[in-house]
Amino acid sequence: MAAHSDIYPALLLIGDGLGDRAVPELGGKTPLEAANTPTLDRLAAEGESGLMDPIGVGIRGGSDTGHLALLGYDPYKYYPGRGPFEALGIGMSVARGDLAFRCNFSTVDDGLIVLDRRAGRIKDGTAELAAALNGLQIEDVTCYFKESIAHRAALVMRGPGLGEHVSDVDPHEVGAKVWEAHSTKEGDAASEKTARILNAFVRKSYEILDQHPINVQRRAQGLPPANIALPRGIGVSPDLPPFNEKAGVKSACIVEVGLVKGLGEYLGMDVIDVQGSTASVDTDTEAIGRAVIEALQDHNFVLCNVKGPDVAGHDGNARGKISIIEKIDRMVEQIVAATGGKLIIAFTGDHSTPVTYGDHTGEPCPILFWGPTVRKDLVTTFGETAASQGGVHRIRGLDVVNILTSYMGVQEKFGA
Amino acid sequence: MAAHSDIYPALLLIGDGLGDRAVPELGGKTPLEAANTPTLDRLAAEGESGLMDPIGVGIRGGSDTGHLALLGYDPYKYYPGRGPFEALGIGMSVARGDLAFRCNFSTVDDGLIVLDRRAGRIKDGTAELAAALNGLQIEDVTCYFKESIAHRAALVMRGPGLGEHVSDVDPHEVGAKVWEAHSTKEGDAASEKTARILNAFVRKSYEILDQHPINVQRRAQGLPPANIALPRGIGVSPDLPPFNEKAGVKSACIVEVGLVKGLGEYLGMDVIDVQGSTASVDTDTEAIGRAVIEALQDHNFVLCNVKGPDVAGHDGNARGKISIIEKIDRMVEQIVAATGGKLIIAFTGDHSTPVTYGDHTGEPCPILFWGPTVRKDLVTTFGETAASQGGVHRIRGLDVVNILTSYMGVQEKFGA
Repeated sequence: MAAHSDIYPALLLIGDGLGDRAVPELGGKTPLEAANTPTLDRLAAEGESGLMDPIGVGIRGGSDTGHLALLGYDPYKYYPGRGPFEALGIGMSVARGDLAFRCNFSTVDDGLIVLDRRAGRIKDGTAELAAALNGLQIEDVTCYFKESIAHRAALVMRGPGLGEHVSDVDPHEVGAKVWEAHSTKEGDAASEKTARILNAFVRKSYEILDQHPINVQRRAQGLPPANIALPRGIGVSPDLPPFNEKAGVKSACIVEVGLVKGLGEYLGMDVIDVQGSTASVDTDTEAIGRAVIEALQDHNFVLCNVKGPDVAGHDGNARGKISIIEKIDRMVEQIVAATGGKLIIAFTGDHSTPVTYGDHTGEPCPILFWGPTVRKDLVTTFGETAASQGGVHRIRGLDVVNILTSYMGVQEKFGA
Repeated sequence: MAAHSDIYPALLLIGDGLGDRAVPELGGKTPLEAANTPTLDRLAAEGESGLMDPIGVGIRGGSDTGHLALLGYDPYKYYPGRGPFEALGIGMSVARGDLAFRCNFSTVDDGLIVLDRRAGRIKDGTAELAAALNGLQIEDVTCYFKESIAHRAALVMRGPGLGEHVSDVDPHEVGAKVWEAHSTKEGDAASEKTARILNAFVRKSYEILDQHPINVQRRAQGLPPANIALPRGIGVSPDLPPFNEKAGVKSACIVEVGLVKGLGEYLGMDVIDVQGSTASVDTDTEAIGRAVIEALQDHNFVLCNVKGPDVAGHDGNARGKISIIEKIDRMVEQIVAATGGKLIIAFTGDHSTPVTYGDHTGEPCPILFWGPTVRKDLVTTFGETAASQGGVHRIRGLDVVNILTSYMGVQEKFGA
């Protein structure tokens, strides 16, 4: 009898920045190859693996564009600039039609010459400073403002007739004067309006922040005041179809990257926070594992992102990358054991962050698929080189959800 | 001297639903891997193999969309909904501009409430019932109607100014009343006309069928009358360029799937019927082999589809799938022997139909190319796992005819 009724849930597990290059101090192995990963090796041996280009062959992507693609949304079609995702990532409400910007708290003099683009990498008091800007009304537009980590923040503009074709205000350079924004699209009244509001917002942020008690205190401590907000990375909120509808699943999102959390929320996934998740190599992967196991009780698709490999990659910390990969390996064992193996797992990265380079690169990530319905190839360990020999060959990020929903048994048929 | 003048004919042989997954009762092998296939193994050893995604990586396709792609027509561009292929598949004439629907004979009460969507899965008498509807003239439109298998039928509307944006009449639910069709495109007079004709056709089908002698007899036997025709799956006949012109060949089509036969006719291929072809595992593959050999006398491209592997896959019948694959192996030997090996062979599937799943899935099909001009790789047997190591790597259905016409020596050069 055909077991057509065998339907499995799926876990799409992302080791952020997983892919790497040969590391001399590891004898030419990558951190993934040097790590002791008995469970990932077993899954690769029992399933199939290959290489996956999140966005396209050779393309250096981000966590936002990478996750967009891995969830089946072509970032060349859907990526609206980083602003909206940044805002979503710190828990701001973003509605369709809003404009959003990433911002820095910066230090300027009274001629608006930039003295420090990051206001001395300010750590404390940004919540109060942000609150002083939040809700500013300029013409018929409301400006929502919220602090992120350190000197970072986000601005959401909500109001009628806003356009997105606007030049920068942040000169990206110390000693330069803050630029006046202008429309970059001839005759576009909406973008002219945005430029006007943006210039007014920047000016007002200086007026409000310069003598704010937090900055009075900072000056007294010899610290540069965070006396202006400089927006950049403008983006209009994207028209993304909800993930559950698009993929035919009921999904949860357990991720350590604010940007990706915001994306999950925007896509209508159930976003689950985990106590002990630190978004670094010291994160509590066992707690994340428990959250995944619990989410699989009432969801049939879980996206889980562990940020540590990317952090270690940026830090050039090969040992740290090995350590977090070994923690992920134990987490996968924990999940497989708790579910009796009755699930489909895909494990990969959203981009490569080689420890020898310290930033994202365009090489593909290794990917493995494992589960009761998954084909078996001849690969017996999990790593960049081994995966290059795998039965999956070389696929795109956009293919991953289709492969999963086929193995899950929930994909609609195209044709008869 | 280069043998530039060596031109070979090609056989594109499709084992319908060939691809599979590991089967526990076969010790983890797929049916293709478990089957005794000395000829296919030899061809794989002498030629090259790989994996082929008929429609796209991870995409669950049908026989119609799969064959469209394998013949080089992008189904995302050309697939018009199932109606036209269904009609073609049962031998109805479909012309450019016609609208076609799949239909069910159903049972309704006198308030047009659906009592049985399949009229008790009626087996006999549908030819007479269909004849009573065939040729109905409504306004300036002629309705052609023909029975298919069991409760299934097809409707072709031919006439001026018909539009395809029309809502359903089949409520897809017992206890619901037959719906009134309406145009789903604001201000589209052509679709309004189609909706009007469709509603009139459904009404007339009830008036004509309800007291038809076949139904009088069915009621006397306690069977539900097949007293209405409910169309669905509307499609406008697609604007497909003829295959011979597109591929630069003279082609024949020897296939066991009605849908694909219809496609071949529509594409202008010479469709050849085979006595003893049953579209199941008991089909006469030797007779099909003879037909292929004969067709190769006066065609340089033969598409041949053997349906059995798909039937066995749907039935969850691993032994049956092995048996029909072994028959295909002998048929290939027969064809190679009769032609002295002077041809190019591609053997693959139009989709996977794993016996453990019982329906189509999105995994790629193994594919092999063989012939005097074909490259050789390191693979020595034919099967899903072996093919994953092959020199063809992972290609798309759309690539197959191009590979064949290049090996045949008949492809036009693109460039100088």
